[in-house]
Amino acid sequence: MNQAIQEQPGTKTTERLLYSPGLEGVIAGESTLCQVDEGEAGLRYRGYAIGDLAEWSRFEEVAHLLLIGHLPTQNELDSFSIRLRSHRVLPEPVQRFVDRLQPGLHPMDVLRTGISLLGLSDPDAQDGSHEANLRKSMRLLSQIPLLIAHSYRVMSGTSTQKQDESPDFAQHLLHLVAGHKHGDIGAAMAQVLNVSLILYAEHEFNASTFAARVTASTLTDLHGAITAAVATLKGPLHGGANEAVASMLIEIGSPERAEAWVREALAQKRRVMGFGHRVLRQGDARSAIIQRHAERLSHLCGDHSWYDIASTIHRIMREEKGLHPNLDFYTAVAYLLMGIPRELSTPLFVCSRITGWCAHVMEQQEHNRLIRPRALYTGPAPRTYEPLDRRP
Amino acid sequence: MNQAIQEQPGTKTTERLLYSPGLEGVIAGESTLCQVDEGEAGLRYRGYAIGDLAEWSRFEEVAHLLLIGHLPTQNELDSFSIRLRSHRVLPEPVQRFVDRLQPGLHPMDVLRTGISLLGLSDPDAQDGSHEANLRKSMRLLSQIPLLIAHSYRVMSGTSTQKQDESPDFAQHLLHLVAGHKHGDIGAAMAQVLNVSLILYAEHEFNASTFAARVTASTLTDLHGAITAAVATLKGPLHGGANEAVASMLIEIGSPERAEAWVREALAQKRRVMGFGHRVLRQGDARSAIIQRHAERLSHLCGDHSWYDIASTIHRIMREEKGLHPNLDFYTAVAYLLMGIPRELSTPLFVCSRITGWCAHVMEQQEHNRLIRPRALYTGPAPRTYEPLDRRP
Repeated sequence: MNQAIQEQPGTKTTERLLYSPGLEGVIAGESTLCQVDEGEAGLRYRGYAIGDLAEWSRFEEVAHLLLIGHLPTQNELDSFSIRLRSHRVLPEPVQRFVDRLQPGLHPMDVLRTGISLLGLSDPDAQDGSHEANLRKSMRLLSQIPLLIAHSYRVMSGTSTQKQDESPDFAQHLLHLVAGHKHGDIGAAMAQVLNVSLILYAEHEFNASTFAARVTASTLTDLHGAITAAVATLKGPLHGGANEAVASMLIEIGSPERAEAWVREALAQKRRVMGFGHRVLRQGDARSAIIQRHAERLSHLCGDHSWYDIASTIHRIMREEKGLHPNLDFYTAVAYLLMGIPRELSTPLFVCSRITGWCAHVMEQQEHNRLIRPRALYTGPAPRTYEPLDRRP
Repeated sequence: MNQAIQEQPGTKTTERLLYSPGLEGVIAGESTLCQVDEGEAGLRYRGYAIGDLAEWSRFEEVAHLLLIGHLPTQNELDSFSIRLRSHRVLPEPVQRFVDRLQPGLHPMDVLRTGISLLGLSDPDAQDGSHEANLRKSMRLLSQIPLLIAHSYRVMSGTSTQKQDESPDFAQHLLHLVAGHKHGDIGAAMAQVLNVSLILYAEHEFNASTFAARVTASTLTDLHGAITAAVATLKGPLHGGANEAVASMLIEIGSPERAEAWVREALAQKRRVMGFGHRVLRQGDARSAIIQRHAERLSHLCGDHSWYDIASTIHRIMREEKGLHPNLDFYTAVAYLLMGIPRELSTPLFVCSRITGWCAHVMEQQEHNRLIRPRALYTGPAPRTYEPLDRRP
């Protein structure tokens, strides 16, 4: 540990402490979960390149890798999947909350509240052991898709989907949020959703994961830490960005309007969503992967309009600003093709990132140190207290 | 900004980034709200010494100072208090949630869920402006005591208190959580609770406040950030500590047993609760203030046992370990004398700290920068992906 950031008690020495706004570039802890690399390999989860995982794995394998620590054998995957399926049910108090939801609520506020409620009902609520946290994580992984889909249906007044018993996580999720999709196109959509879940599963100390770790560092319960993460992800500077991309594509509406729309946005210095990343300045390996899948799905669906709008924006942003799209950008194209409601973009992010969050909470608590930084005081100098009756 | 903590993209340079576990001593942002000083003045809120505030102010004045930015005049205090009283009601969905609570739930989990639900019902739910956040903060300040007290009554099966319309925050809160207290003793208890609320209101970048700021830094909503803070405060390394002190005093039970109990705990290297602080190594000015009030209240109540147990522990910890009690220590004595249920110790912390949290959320969002640090990767080196059918 560097001597320069040893704590100096008292305010007089505050100036000597280092300060990087937003903790940019500051190491806040250790993790074995992922390596963010802008080089060839891009991102790695526990040592495995994201490209290989996205190309060859089911999302459940990646969930197993993150939560349990290694890629499963066929037997391990089978029993992991069976356990996940057995958790596909919402406890009665949560179902009651969902049934009484009113239209117009923010899906992420509903999800935050629902996950907090799930914590009250969890059979391991009073147990903070690693084993209990792993059980809680697996329950959440299965419960969150139900919570999102059922809440959306109640709030939007749409009818309940026929139960889908697909053992595959992505296929089941697609059915829940976009209805049954037939034949080859349905299979292709489930495959692209599977890829997207893998790409979104984990990304080091992003704001929501870091919030989960700060919360977990007081040795509070896992559901509390995940509730904090969901609250954090909602913000437009984080998970809220993928919904904003979908909104932008919908606003533009047709490929012919795309170029004029972006140029006008740039001229007016409006923010074009889906570009840039705090950490990844040279581009994001995940973006190229989901772009390829979004393009292929456009061909299969015979609907090129979303992809063409997006690729026009991409070209102009590269030419004019030298910016690269982030993961959210072409993911929005894929989700629009699948018929996933725009409002569910950020909740779907949760269906995947819950694996990374839970793995981080367990990792934090296994090697815990309370996360308690200092502030740089910039307020009034010491001043004399005036009692109420002498205040001007 | 120091060059040494400029971000170095890529993992090869990670070793060059500074690292302080738990962000100890690391400045994570700027704040005008409070100055933590171990010297003479102790803590200051916006420049005013904590001793003066605790001695002369009503808690509402301190809430006004933190939320609005200055100590109120009499007129400002009157209208602030009237607004707070007008918010003393729980929205119907929250009341419904409370009415169906089952015994055995953790009060902090209930509070976390209830605050998240309050966010769904808030009339300003879709408005993230400073003015809306101030309105939300004032509503929460009034709603949280009701949420805590009503939840506790439903879960413990005790009868509903007769409505108390006291305009004074501390007096109203005392009535809610401990029932009506008569005469001089009742007035003295409300005064000590008032002092305790002032002492707990704000303490820089403690873990729960920092969690609220990380969450708020994605520009998510205020209720989300406060939900994260409540989840964080629950942990035994943070707010959970004050309940642990009460449990310890109850376990010891009588002053005659105190010395032997502490010496045995020290011999067995068990942790004695209520001592030490991450930031305050030389003692805490707040502790001396609440100790004085706890002692006075013991005299008034004619019940010295809790105070005598505590002061015996204090003496031995000073002699044997050179440790100073923190704020939680003598607060537990005061709360036990008031008849506040032990399980409500940490929720009562929330009734006060909500002011500091909300002030921090507003401050963060007014000068926002996404809080997104980096991790030091300590996991497996890059490794080759083996497809499922080739895994051993």
